[in-house]
Amino acid sequence: MKIIDKILKREEEGAPYWSFEYFPPKTQQGLVNLYDRIGRMYNLGPLFIDVTWRWGGKSSDLTLEICSMGQSVYGLETNMHMTCTNTSFDLIKNALAEAKENGIQNILALRGDLPRGVNEEDATDAQFRYAVDLVKYTRREYGDFFCISVAGYPEGCASPDDVEKDILYLKEKVDAGADLVITQLFYDVDLYLDWVARCRKAGISVPILPGIMPIQNYNGFKRMTELCKIRVPQEVWDSLEDIKEDDQAVKNYGIELAVKMIRELRDSGVNGFHFYTLNLERSTQMILEKMNFIPKVDEIRPLPWAQPISDKRARENVRPIFWRNQTRNYIARTANWDEFPNGRWGDSRSPAYGELVHGVQIRFSTENALKIWGEPASLKDVQDLFISYCRGQLSSLPWSDTPLLPESDSIRDQLAQLNAAGYLTINSQPSANSVPSKDPVHGWGPPNGFVYKKAYLEFFISPELLEHVLARIRNHPTITYLVVNKKGELQSNFDTESPNAVTWGVFPGKEIIQPTIVESISFLAWKDEAFDFWSAWSKVYQPDSPSHKLLNDLGEKWYLMNIVENNYLEPDSKLHDLLLDISKSAGFRKPTAELNGFS
Amino acid sequence: MKIIDKILKREEEGAPYWSFEYFPPKTQQGLVNLYDRIGRMYNLGPLFIDVTWRWGGKSSDLTLEICSMGQSVYGLETNMHMTCTNTSFDLIKNALAEAKENGIQNILALRGDLPRGVNEEDATDAQFRYAVDLVKYTRREYGDFFCISVAGYPEGCASPDDVEKDILYLKEKVDAGADLVITQLFYDVDLYLDWVARCRKAGISVPILPGIMPIQNYNGFKRMTELCKIRVPQEVWDSLEDIKEDDQAVKNYGIELAVKMIRELRDSGVNGFHFYTLNLERSTQMILEKMNFIPKVDEIRPLPWAQPISDKRARENVRPIFWRNQTRNYIARTANWDEFPNGRWGDSRSPAYGELVHGVQIRFSTENALKIWGEPASLKDVQDLFISYCRGQLSSLPWSDTPLLPESDSIRDQLAQLNAAGYLTINSQPSANSVPSKDPVHGWGPPNGFVYKKAYLEFFISPELLEHVLARIRNHPTITYLVVNKKGELQSNFDTESPNAVTWGVFPGKEIIQPTIVESISFLAWKDEAFDFWSAWSKVYQPDSPSHKLLNDLGEKWYLMNIVENNYLEPDSKLHDLLLDISKSAGFRKPTAELNGFS
Repeated sequence: MKIIDKILKREEEGAPYWSFEYFPPKTQQGLVNLYDRIGRMYNLGPLFIDVTWRWGGKSSDLTLEICSMGQSVYGLETNMHMTCTNTSFDLIKNALAEAKENGIQNILALRGDLPRGVNEEDATDAQFRYAVDLVKYTRREYGDFFCISVAGYPEGCASPDDVEKDILYLKEKVDAGADLVITQLFYDVDLYLDWVARCRKAGISVPILPGIMPIQNYNGFKRMTELCKIRVPQEVWDSLEDIKEDDQAVKNYGIELAVKMIRELRDSGVNGFHFYTLNLERSTQMILEKMNFIPKVDEIRPLPWAQPISDKRARENVRPIFWRNQTRNYIARTANWDEFPNGRWGDSRSPAYGELVHGVQIRFSTENALKIWGEPASLKDVQDLFISYCRGQLSSLPWSDTPLLPESDSIRDQLAQLNAAGYLTINSQPSANSVPSKDPVHGWGPPNGFVYKKAYLEFFISPELLEHVLARIRNHPTITYLVVNKKGELQSNFDTESPNAVTWGVFPGKEIIQPTIVESISFLAWKDEAFDFWSAWSKVYQPDSPSHKLLNDLGEKWYLMNIVENNYLEPDSKLHDLLLDISKSAGFRKPTAELNGFS
Repeated sequence: MKIIDKILKREEEGAPYWSFEYFPPKTQQGLVNLYDRIGRMYNLGPLFIDVTWRWGGKSSDLTLEICSMGQSVYGLETNMHMTCTNTSFDLIKNALAEAKENGIQNILALRGDLPRGVNEEDATDAQFRYAVDLVKYTRREYGDFFCISVAGYPEGCASPDDVEKDILYLKEKVDAGADLVITQLFYDVDLYLDWVARCRKAGISVPILPGIMPIQNYNGFKRMTELCKIRVPQEVWDSLEDIKEDDQAVKNYGIELAVKMIRELRDSGVNGFHFYTLNLERSTQMILEKMNFIPKVDEIRPLPWAQPISDKRARENVRPIFWRNQTRNYIARTANWDEFPNGRWGDSRSPAYGELVHGVQIRFSTENALKIWGEPASLKDVQDLFISYCRGQLSSLPWSDTPLLPESDSIRDQLAQLNAAGYLTINSQPSANSVPSKDPVHGWGPPNGFVYKKAYLEFFISPELLEHVLARIRNHPTITYLVVNKKGELQSNFDTESPNAVTWGVFPGKEIIQPTIVESISFLAWKDEAFDFWSAWSKVYQPDSPSHKLLNDLGEKWYLMNIVENNYLEPDSKLHDLLLDISKSAGFRKPTAELNGFS
């Protein structure tokens, strides 16, 4: 979708909206962190995100990758920056083609910086000397396909003296087909409003989004504003003077200042705000909270998972639960599907899961992994890691890149107990019975609806404990299960090919939407990954180390089990208590050092 | 499905089962009544029904028609009788072909009676002299397609002297491929059990279903048992002697006797019972109740509507609500669909409704219609008819062949009030919120599930009252509506092409099943029928009569409206009270003689 359409709708409603700008990080770990951040900041309800551009081999690939991930995994409309000076025609041509292929429909056309010592006139491809050339080329080659935004410079591009000339350039870019303007950052609201008025007078009528960069630290701010010749009101300098050594105080002031600026802009009728996040989260979040810019549940969560923004997956609205904590793998393994389940899994499924090219991966370097998970040498050590994760003291496990969701707050303790009792949980959901769709924790979908969840648990379990569990639940009237070992031997007590809906919503004037399901084909595809994580984790340790052997052994010998309590009217504790009771009567004890928990 | 498979399953479980035999009635009105009866008796949970056969033009067509209707409209596995003597090869060939084409997979192969004065040897087609010939032919031509049942004669086919010979014939029929035996009626249990033992000894190992015919009146019983040479224990004659003039007492005795016989048979290990209903309902129902033969909700109601038994429609599980009281028309208008909605209406719908060849029809003759509905001369008279229907004092209206369902008992009074307030209701549903699926009134589907309903109403409404209603509900957050006039001008307040699920069920290990929906394409197809009923009704009266004009006027001027309250957690009274309030504040008064209810 084009962001201009979303913007025009908000402008028509006079409703506030906001967007976040990120840049491609330099390290693999930085990228992992950025993805986590983008995932979390999704919940702040940005209308779109921007990703900046750097030419040259891996860098521009990375921009493209982050943009596609934004669209597919995080369900965010993405605006891809592109610079055009000092590069080749072929590179630009390819970049636009790749963007289109990846479902990216928004670009920010920029001239880009010239390498030190290179004059405009000497820049490589004369066809693309200015941003306007890129706008023209894109419109000519792609017609209306892309929404094109361009940069505006309230204080001149190179110098304040250029403002008038730059407005003429901006007018040229808009006339060439740009749909909207995103401005350089500024700290002087009056100056900005005056500049907008001059733009309007010059005949620029497209939406103009002010760029907001919360101050993060004194030195950076000083260097940047001097370098870019950004006017900063004296009162800002005065306020910073006393606190400039205190980073936290500076950040807090930055938040206050941004809130004050946004208030003034709102009072002057401005609705949209573009945040230069510097890949940071807190300031932006605080500003939105202080402004009371609260996204509506139905807008940020039309479904309980982030719906990809691409024509191809646009109608996808059912997913198996198994990749809930590994969405990127799910997207990758289903990328070649011709159609996606819409409304039901049944006939329209394309159950041929693709392979993961690089297998499953531990997100941390060996060094970091050792720091976070230590060197588990016994089942107890492993259980303790799982317990810490459930209690929120550990932010990730190999199976879960991110901490437990807030929806699980109510079952944290119970999950910890289950892990202590020998069920190594890797995925779970508490039940929900007719919770209003606007509920901030469980809610999703259109207003005035009700959402439901069946409680489920997924865990690794020893063969010994499994036997006891099966004896108790095999003929249970409301519990359904799937269990499989590494070899792929599946056991179950229901028709596993027909999906079991575990999340659904009922809304006015709509079919029942059932966005998450359990069924066997997906479980069997997922189990390869789930077991591989044991082996990937073990590789953090030396081949002959106790940790290596332990983790490998768990992966070889234990079973992967999924249990659903189909009676969602009962409290979650019923299922948990049953499992705890089975473990207790089976004689499972929290082990000390040995692998097997039976004594 | 073959009934033998259902029977073997029950036999394996040792669970009781029963089947009903009907015969094709001689009059159109009789046929209408039989269909109603079959529809009601569906809820008694017969494992299958039998329809007897009469050759000759319309009669055999009628058997075929009732069988297909049983399969398609009433969702009952049907066993079609076929006789073969004294008929032509072509007729038999065609009848079997037609049966197969209509999805009928069970036949009862009979010799049939010879016309008076015709000897076996003189019967027309020598190829089909005995039932065994038909069994052989069917197996040869159709392989395993049909389940073939044959008749057994515990007291001999023609005379008690023939019993041994008849067992040999029966053995021949079984050896030729018959899957089960259904016996002639009898009243001497010992005699029957002895006969079964002899059959078993003779090597007949297929299931044998005893035929049970409850005594309905003395003279008929006497004539029939004499004619068919059926042994009746003396104690039965003794018991009947004193009450033979009292038909009701004879019927009651017939019930007691059947219950006694079935008890004895159960004690001897008999599980299945075939009832000769004589197209009557009460005795069979009473016997089943007294025997505590209660069908399981999930077996008689896998869905809230009777699911057609045919391969073609086997996976159909979603229907629009509009034909709820006109299922035959829905089946007829969708008969040519290539695929049926399965799980959702959306993409797999084939929204091209066929035409009704004969248009809509009033089920009664003019004479009967006049008797039932009188000659309404004012809107008040029409309202009074609708009110009587809601109160259960009138068993049908043109739009509804059958009385209100028990599920509507809770809203009868409210519906009557709505009709008094100017809403002429023709379809409605009370809400249901997480009602257990085994609930005898609202329940359907597999055990341990929960079913839900959104309350809806469908009614005719005057243009004046409609305006007031729309003013109040157009922007209501939880009410969705469709309204249309005869010309087809549709108004609505939701995305009418996407279906609104108004009944759904949640079951262990399954997707959410949503068997009834509201959407506009079906509503527009249905509205033609709905409006045509006014005109069909008006034709009961002379063209220049006040009733004719009144009913035609209502059909021409009023609107058809469907309203759904999407908040199924609220009591139904909320929607009803709102509508009553609108009518009251709009100044609608129950009119006396004029058409328009506003004074």
